[in-house]
This record gives sequence, structure tokens and C-alpha cells, in this order.
Amino acid sequence: MSEELFGYQGIARELLLKANASVGDRIRIIRENRIFEGTLMPREALYGEKPFIVIKLDNGYNIGVKVDQSTIIEKVVTKKKITGYPSKPPIQRKELPNVIMLSTGGTIVSKVDYETGAVRPALSTDELLEWIPEIADIIYLEAKEVTRIFSEDMRPSIWAKVAEEAYRAMIKGYDGIVVAHGTDTMGYTAAALAFAIENKPVPIVLVGSQRSSDRPSTDSAFNLKASFLVAAKAPFAESVVVMHGETGDVYAYVHRGVKVRKMHTSRRDAFQSINDKPIAMVYPDSKEIKIIGRIIEWRDKNKEPILRNHFDEKVALVKAYPGFDPEIIEFFIDKKYHGIVIEGTGLGHIANRVIPTIKRAVEEGIVVVMTSQCLFGRINMHVYSTGRRLLEAGVIPGNDILPETAYVKLSWILGMTRDLEEVKRIFLTNIVGEINPRHTIDLYPRWVL
Amino acid sequence: MSEELFGYQGIARELLLKANASVGDRIRIIRENRIFEGTLMPREALYGEKPFIVIKLDNGYNIGVKVDQSTIIEKVVTKKKITGYPSKPPIQRKELPNVIMLSTGGTIVSKVDYETGAVRPALSTDELLEWIPEIADIIYLEAKEVTRIFSEDMRPSIWAKVAEEAYRAMIKGYDGIVVAHGTDTMGYTAAALAFAIENKPVPIVLVGSQRSSDRPSTDSAFNLKASFLVAAKAPFAESVVVMHGETGDVYAYVHRGVKVRKMHTSRRDAFQSINDKPIAMVYPDSKEIKIIGRIIEWRDKNKEPILRNHFDEKVALVKAYPGFDPEIIEFFIDKKYHGIVIEGTGLGHIANRVIPTIKRAVEEGIVVVMTSQCLFGRINMHVYSTGRRLLEAGVIPGNDILPETAYVKLSWILGMTRDLEEVKRIFLTNIVGEINPRHTIDLYPRWVL
Repeated sequence: MSEELFGYQGIARELLLKANASVGDRIRIIRENRIFEGTLMPREALYGEKPFIVIKLDNGYNIGVKVDQSTIIEKVVTKKKITGYPSKPPIQRKELPNVIMLSTGGTIVSKVDYETGAVRPALSTDELLEWIPEIADIIYLEAKEVTRIFSEDMRPSIWAKVAEEAYRAMIKGYDGIVVAHGTDTMGYTAAALAFAIENKPVPIVLVGSQRSSDRPSTDSAFNLKASFLVAAKAPFAESVVVMHGETGDVYAYVHRGVKVRKMHTSRRDAFQSINDKPIAMVYPDSKEIKIIGRIIEWRDKNKEPILRNHFDEKVALVKAYPGFDPEIIEFFIDKKYHGIVIEGTGLGHIANRVIPTIKRAVEEGIVVVMTSQCLFGRINMHVYSTGRRLLEAGVIPGNDILPETAYVKLSWILGMTRDLEEVKRIFLTNIVGEINPRHTIDLYPRWVL
Repeated sequence: MSEELFGYQGIARELLLKANASVGDRIRIIRENRIFEGTLMPREALYGEKPFIVIKLDNGYNIGVKVDQSTIIEKVVTKKKITGYPSKPPIQRKELPNVIMLSTGGTIVSKVDYETGAVRPALSTDELLEWIPEIADIIYLEAKEVTRIFSEDMRPSIWAKVAEEAYRAMIKGYDGIVVAHGTDTMGYTAAALAFAIENKPVPIVLVGSQRSSDRPSTDSAFNLKASFLVAAKAPFAESVVVMHGETGDVYAYVHRGVKVRKMHTSRRDAFQSINDKPIAMVYPDSKEIKIIGRIIEWRDKNKEPILRNHFDEKVALVKAYPGFDPEIIEFFIDKKYHGIVIEGTGLGHIANRVIPTIKRAVEEGIVVVMTSQCLFGRINMHVYSTGRRLLEAGVIPGNDILPETAYVKLSWILGMTRDLEEVKRIFLTNIVGEINPRHTIDLYPRWVL
């Protein structure tokens, strides 16, 4: 028990020992007139002397509760021991599929100090293996840190860096690539990696965690196991997002990177495919991958990948709304932007008063693409006169592409060429499944349960 | 038959007579080497001499097919006669609930000429009654045109005008108000009307049509019937959106105006409640209204409405994305904006590099509100350091309010006061149910069917 409390020192450790509490137990902390109840979490030794006890609340969040001599701690339920913590990492076997995990930051690989909120270094290979020993039964893992940022700080130049690392790993012959990423902008990065490497021999699997991760956190571990399985064994070679398929720990979904969107601020099953089915379901326990959707690119280690990772940062994603001021478009003209993706209304509209400015933007060489804030369904700019006027002004209709994916795709195309006709031709070409030519009725969710 | 073809003249009429085709029949038009098949639609007399035949395709869209002497028309299926077209309007009965329909434009009340795309005057009371004679069994209807625009051209000053008309109708003692509106920005207007009239005695029901409307169009008629039922009989007095609940003509949903969003570019059931259940289901055939959600404001004709319909147009709705340039925020500072709603990522984030500019905006008196592009779930800016830094910079967390509703609410508050503390206090107050304090697990859709 004392070993499991190793991170706790001073008064926090004293109180926990007195309550006979171990990491993983459900405890109650009574401090002055407040009561906190949750699962006792392990604590980093570095911060252990500070008088905080970290518990995971029932809503999934961890909090650090300050304790002193007057605090009372009660053990509510003794939990089963948490697998593999702490222990020696298992021996890895070279004959298993080689998977590299590129970490970029985010909750999944960060050890966050709950007092200061500071992000600390990403997990090493050994730490990952200690934490989830089953990894050694599936793959030969190597972990590498590419960057260490919150995903809200991700930007196109870092997509380029991650793409280059993924490309190098493909050239080196890895059987699969996992990219650990914060969830906020994981969908954008998944789309960027889908476009940046053509002719992928193996999959690139983005994985994150929706709940603040400590060691051990079931949310992160489940998603990681699923992502390693997909990286090692899936028959497809696409850029995908692997995350919880529902709230329970039964299966994860594999979403096509260009068709996925974070649809909930906090749920584990926040990531959902829009205008497409997930490619597959993954069952980490049985190690099964069940294909349920379309496969666009197949795994084939003989394929030679091509890296095209220059993204134009002079591209804007602009939302239409009733008070939209045409001067916003003028701002981008003045700032010499190269592309604007409009998140329009309905079938692909924006106020008619904005159209003359959009026309001027196109005349000045800015590529303007129309998508819909509805998210579901397809752009059709032939139905109403506003759409037809926008087409006449030179706006490119975004088909059923997500606004976020259209933004990434346009940045990527403008990184290669600024020839308007060529940009238009490539934009309207279905590169990696970002356009789904056929929408079946079952692609729309059941909204009211 | 000839009476039903009354809108068609010249060659179009000749061809239709030869084929023994009536309005509502399924016909095939063979012109040169193209074949068009669909339901023959009636045609406005004013345009009838032009050589076009209007058919409704199976995808729900109407097209005008140009015909000449060489065109061949075949009748495929004889359809049952379309109710009430053309006929005399039924006599209205004063003793039924008095409902006023304020029309603003949009597909539902517009007769569009399919050749020119021009929008023509809205439907009159008599035309509505001719078209849907059952109306006379439910309500005493009066129709009034407030404006005639595409909903993408709607703007805050027109919300104010519609709100004033609705307020006047309440003062005059109508039992319910229907606002016919284009679907593109109907959610925004529904939110605006929810805030602009306090203490509503009767409901304001926004209704639209997702499919191009001709007389008769089942999509429009179904939604209109449902909206009249709600206006006349619902126990609540909120600003709501009434639209198809599924693809079939069985029930419509009543969505709270501040919690609804257009989620599909073309489906009939495009409107969906986010972070809330619909208030009710409406069955136009049985005239039943079944309450399934929360009611915030109850119908009570003794209530005295208060009009607060000034919306500040100096408010922006800005979406965060990986290449977001802090200069976009600077633009709004330079343009002396009064408010900015950020559609951030995840729990309420934007790139840390933008925070200093946001801080400066707040210092210059601009109110900045944070919402999430996830749409589902709640903002929580205490979990990660980016959120905490934004709070320190003075950003107001938008709770579970939709970005679009936050934009409307902030415009409305800034129309009343620019005192930052007062704006903040009102914004954080739950005015008409725009904040749902309790999210049950069943509020999240079932994404994969």
C-alpha cells in the first residue's frame, strides 16, 4: 500500500495511511464544511510534498483537494488493484508489428499537475508499457515526442512537422503510426495528415483522451490500446481518429480523418463521423477490428508514400451569421489572404449584400470555398438565386466536405499552387474520401433518444 | 383537368393535354436526348405562357423543363387529386383561436418562378385557406407580410421589426403567432424573438419549408398545419421552431427557439434541438400535441408582454481554427465592435497566442463570450490552463448555449446596456431556457444507426 501512495508525502500521506486508503479506492475528504468524494489517484513524486490529494470525481474530472490536520478522510469502497501500476515494463518482442507513437501533447500523454495546471513531459515508451502492459502482446512500441503543446495551439506549420515525422516512419518501415494529440483540434490535424501524405503504406492513427489523464486513466488506456491495434493490424492505410465509440469501455470507432468532428465538449464518445460512417469498430479486449464503412486507401507496405506537407497559413475559416459585415471579407483582401472558406447557411448561402465583396476577393485572386454550418448534407448552390449569384462570383461549392476539412484542404492546395483553375480542379477532386458521393438515409443521427 | 392546368398556356398546355396529364400526375418529359421524370406541378398563370413545364423530381426539387414541338410527354402514373386545389377558400369561424401568420419570406410562403428564380409575393390568407382548407377547422387565420427576403439576408434590424409585429399581435389579443421564415437563419430569428419579448402570453411559432414550395407542397403544408396547431393550442408561450420530426409526414417537433439549430442542408428533419429535448411532438392529423420536454414559459393571456427589441449590430461571431490570426480580433477592436462571440474548440479554448489580443479587446470595452464549436456539451474553462487564462482575460463562459444563440443574446443585451458588469450578469442569467442546467445522457444523439 505504501508503495502505491509513493507520490504522496507529508500530511497528505499521513491522512491517507490513517484512513488505510490506497490508490484506486473510493474515498471521502471532509474539509471544513465541504465533502469531496471520488477515486484516489496516484500523484507525481515531484509534487507530492504539497498538501493536496488528487481524486477523480464521478463526472470524470480530477481535482486536487487541499488538506490539513483538521481534514478527515474516510475510505468508502476498496477498489481492485489497478493493473500494472507500479511495476517493471514488460519485455518487448521485435517480431510483433512495429508501431511508433508520435506525441504532440494533449491530455492523453501529459501528466498534468492539478495544482498548477502545468503540463509535464510526455510519456516514454517504458512508461506506456508499465501503464498498459498488454501493449507488449500486440506491438513493438516506440514513443517519440514531436512537440508538446495543447491542441488549441496547433497550427499548420506543426501539421507539416508531424506529417514529416509520419512520412519518415513510413520510409523506415513501421507497420503503423499513432499520433497522440489533444482532442480540441484533433479532427483538423487528422485531415491535414490525410492530405499531406499521398499513397500511404500504413495507417496514421490519431488518438486522444477526453478526460484529464493521470496514470492510470481508463479513458486514455482504452483509446491507446484501440489505436495500437488499428495501427498494427487494420487493413486500411488512412489517416484516422480512434476514440471511444460510446461511454462504456466496449468498443472504439475508427473515423476517417477528413470526415470526423469533435461533437461534444466532454463526453468520451465526442468524436463522430459526419456525412460518412466510421470505417470500423475496434474491440480492445478481443483485439477485433470490424469494418463497417468505406475503405479508401488499403494497407500495402510496398506503396511508396509521397510527402506534400506545405500548408498555406493565409487561409481563413469564416462563419456567416445574420449581422455579417462585408468588411470582414475586405479585411482578408487587405491582409493579402490566399483563401477563404465560408461556413455559410443552408445549402451554401451568405447574405446577398456580401456577394459584391466576395466577387472582388475572387477578382483579387483569393480562392473562396462555400461550406455549410449545418454540417450534415451537401452544398447545392443551384437551388436558390443567392447560391447561383455566389457561383457566378466564382465561389467553389464545397460539396459535403466539413467546413474544418475544407479549410485544411484549401490550405494544403494553396501550399502547392495558387493557380485558380488548378486550385479549383484539385478542390473539386475527391482526394482521400473527403467527399462522400452517396449519402444513405442512415448517415443522419437519431437525435431524440 | 383543363382547370387544373390553368397556369399552363401555349405549347406547354398543348403537350400536357395531348398526354392527358393533370397536375399531380407522374410524367416523363423527353426532350432531345434527355429524359426528366417527376410529378407535374401547377404553374402561376403570370408565367404560364413561357414554354416551361414544372415537375417535382424524386429528390424533392422542382425544375422547370423547357419544351418545344419536338418534346414528348408521357404520363407514367395518374396521381390522386390534390386536396383543395383549386377551389374556393372555406368560410372562417371567428369563434376559433385567432392566429396571425407573419410572413418574412423564404421557401414556405414564396411562389418562386423556376425560370428566373425570382421570389414573388407571399401567400394571402385566402390562398393559404384554399391550399390547406383544414386550417379553417382549427383556427381563424389572418396572414400579414412583414418583409419578403431570403432568410440568409435576415439581419438584426429585421428581427426587431418582426418582434414588434409579434408584440403588437400579442397586445391585440391573438391566441398565437406564426412566423413564416426561410430555414437558413430561422434558428437565429427564433432566438431573437425569444429574447425580444418578455412575458409572452402566447407562443411565437417559426415555421419553414426545407423543400422548394409550390402549391401544393406536402412539406410546407404539413409544417404549416403543425405550426397553426401549436400557435392555437400549445400550453406554452415560448418562441419555438416547428418543423418535420422525421422524413415522413407523421409528426413535427417543437424546438425551443434558443436551443435549435439547422443540422442538415436538405432533409425535412433538418432542425434539431441541441443540449435540450424538443418541447413537444405535434401530430397534424390527430391534432395532438404531446409534451416531451421542459416548458419554461406558460401560455396565459393575462400576461402583459414587454418588448425589448433593440439588437446591437456591432457584434461578431468568430470561429477559432488552427491558423487563426490574432489580427482578426484586432480588426474588430479597430472597427469599434461592442461584442465578440468566439466559437472556440473543446471546453472553450482558442490558441494561447490570441489571448493577449482578446485581453486588449476586453480592456477596450468589448464583451467577449466563449462558446464551443463542438455544439454539444458545456463550456468549462477551469479544466485547462488555456481556459483559465481566457477567464483571467475577462472572457465570459457561454455555458451550454449554442454559438448562434450566444451571438443573438449578446446582440440583445448590448442593445440595452454596455456596462460590462451588467452585460456579464445578464449573459450568465438564464433568461428563456437558453441554458439547460441539467444534461441527461439521452441528450446526445445516436450517431451511427
